[in-house]
Amino acid sequence: MIAQTPHPPYYAVIFSSVRTDINEGYGSMADCMVELAHGQPGFLGVESARNALGITVSYWDSLDAIRDWKQHAEHLIAQQTGRDRWYEAYKTRICKVERDYEFERQ
Amino acid sequence: MIAQTPHPPYYAVIFSSVRTDINEGYGSMADCMVELAHGQPGFLGVESARNALGITVSYWDSLDAIRDWKQHAEHLIAQQTGRDRWYEAYKTRICKVERDYEFERQ
Repeated sequence: MIAQTPHPPYYAVIFSSVRTDINEGYGSMADCMVELAHGQPGFLGVESARNALGITVSYWDSLDAIRDWKQHAEHLIAQQTGRDRWYEAYKTRICKVERDYEFERQ
Repeated sequence: MIAQTPHPPYYAVIFSSVRTDINEGYGSMADCMVELAHGQPGFLGVESARNALGITVSYWDSLDAIRDWKQHAEHLIAQQTGRDRWYEAYKTRICKVERDYEFERQ
């Protein structure tokens, strides 16, 4: 659920998207990408939610790790298929997490 | 939907949360906070989605703007009420957006 990330600094990729009404192949590809990301060097965690807008935030230990994931062969195919079919629009933001704090009910 | 933000650098606050089952007052307070945030100096936009996990990302032009919003009187009350009632857990991450790119279907 809420990703357990180390003390800052680390990096976040905020992926905000609006889907088309084409669902074919989307769910299994999304699941596959999450599974692949978990195996990438430098992967720290991921959080995701979707209503009309979808937001997926993945966390990484370096900009190099983010670049390697962006260029991963299966991920490149997923990105292209996303533009061809699944996404009406998206925006990706590469961020440096400078500070964080949290609350947990006792 | 997807926030129209200026060229980087700018700042993002990623607020990831898990709700309790107490709904009383939550919806109207959430709406009110979004409306108030829009009027804050330095506010650039906000994106939000919720399933089991909720993710709200607000965008700001400076760390000062984020600090001022965190200390806004009505927002302080909302934060306290959130810890008392509405949230099982949350994590807030303050980020510098270093790079972004986007896609829009023609």
